[in-house]
Amino acid sequence: MRLRNVKNAKEKLEASPFFIPNPKEFKGQWQNVFSKQSVEKNPIHLEIGAGKGQFLIAMAKKNPDMNFIGIEKYESVLVRAIEKVNQTDLKNIVFICVDAMELREIFDHEIATIYLNFSDPWPKSRHAKRRLTSPIFLNIYDHVFKNNPMIIQKTDNLDLFSYSLETLSQHGYCFLQVSLHLQDTQIANVETEYEQKFKEKGIKINYLKACKK
Amino acid sequence: MRLRNVKNAKEKLEASPFFIPNPKEFKGQWQNVFSKQSVEKNPIHLEIGAGKGQFLIAMAKKNPDMNFIGIEKYESVLVRAIEKVNQTDLKNIVFICVDAMELREIFDHEIATIYLNFSDPWPKSRHAKRRLTSPIFLNIYDHVFKNNPMIIQKTDNLDLFSYSLETLSQHGYCFLQVSLHLQDTQIANVETEYEQKFKEKGIKINYLKACKK
Repeated sequence: MRLRNVKNAKEKLEASPFFIPNPKEFKGQWQNVFSKQSVEKNPIHLEIGAGKGQFLIAMAKKNPDMNFIGIEKYESVLVRAIEKVNQTDLKNIVFICVDAMELREIFDHEIATIYLNFSDPWPKSRHAKRRLTSPIFLNIYDHVFKNNPMIIQKTDNLDLFSYSLETLSQHGYCFLQVSLHLQDTQIANVETEYEQKFKEKGIKINYLKACKK
Repeated sequence: MRLRNVKNAKEKLEASPFFIPNPKEFKGQWQNVFSKQSVEKNPIHLEIGAGKGQFLIAMAKKNPDMNFIGIEKYESVLVRAIEKVNQTDLKNIVFICVDAMELREIFDHEIATIYLNFSDPWPKSRHAKRRLTSPIFLNIYDHVFKNNPMIIQKTDNLDLFSYSLETLSQHGYCFLQVSLHLQDTQIANVETEYEQKFKEKGIKINYLKACKK
């Protein structure tokens, strides 16, 4: 994603009730973040790389019985999501600004589903471990997931997708659903910013829904 | 595959030393078929839907330390493979003419690897069980495989491929290698007749190598 410097990004984030500035303090207690706002103990869904928030905000609107946490590494990107969500009265969504490598310090077996939408493919082999489905991250997710882990990935990148099929299956996941042209299927889908652009260009979207027993 | 009627197909098959007319008699004893010809106890690899034999004959030439059995349902197609293999002095390849549904009656835990190259995708949902990676066939293969089952599939069909990723992973397989554009990768590959045509047209070939622990 192209990064533009956004003036006062930090201040804008901290001024929003949708932004959690100190996520490590909630480790093991994320249900409390939502309990004051929504129905307690609804499952918590996590998007890693939430970008400008379009996907997660739409998911939160569509699924009032689920809670959503969006993770984005860059303040200057997250501020766009915060500006968007500030205009809603949603009670089931918050955002945090951290690197995915820190997730183990933030969640303790609390998450139902992880969404990975159009993640950086890190095409070079020597960067493979940075991919969000590398064994390093899959080990981290094991500490993040509550039970019945579920990962849902979308990407236009063929190599990232085949890499994920390998690493997930080798980490004990099995695939409930796979599509190599999501646009043409009946799979329920909420679009991201990227996806709309790809669709217009006729680029095929790859989709997988993986669970671990 | 377009089927042409071939005159005297049955006679041509039965006249060849590469054709086994009575495969059920060898159940549990397939090593004997090769032991007279090649080094005993080399692993046996099976291609289901061997077609005109190009892939399997090339594999047999390339891998003298492996044995190969080609299965083809149609005599009129298999005769083309037999004509081809008759011109060689290979000792590590035979062909049989059966339906894959009968494999359990033909093999008893004897096979190392199954190749599925450009199998019929059976696109309609109501025909899904006919796909060579349907749970029905995966159960049959469990009786066919010796130990450490390995399935290697190539197809241009996106839906057959994603179906296979689902069924294989749900049947306990994990993916050692996946590619969604085999042509552009470093994966060692022996081409089939279909594949050459697809390559010329720029159609991407999907590839998976799955093993079961």
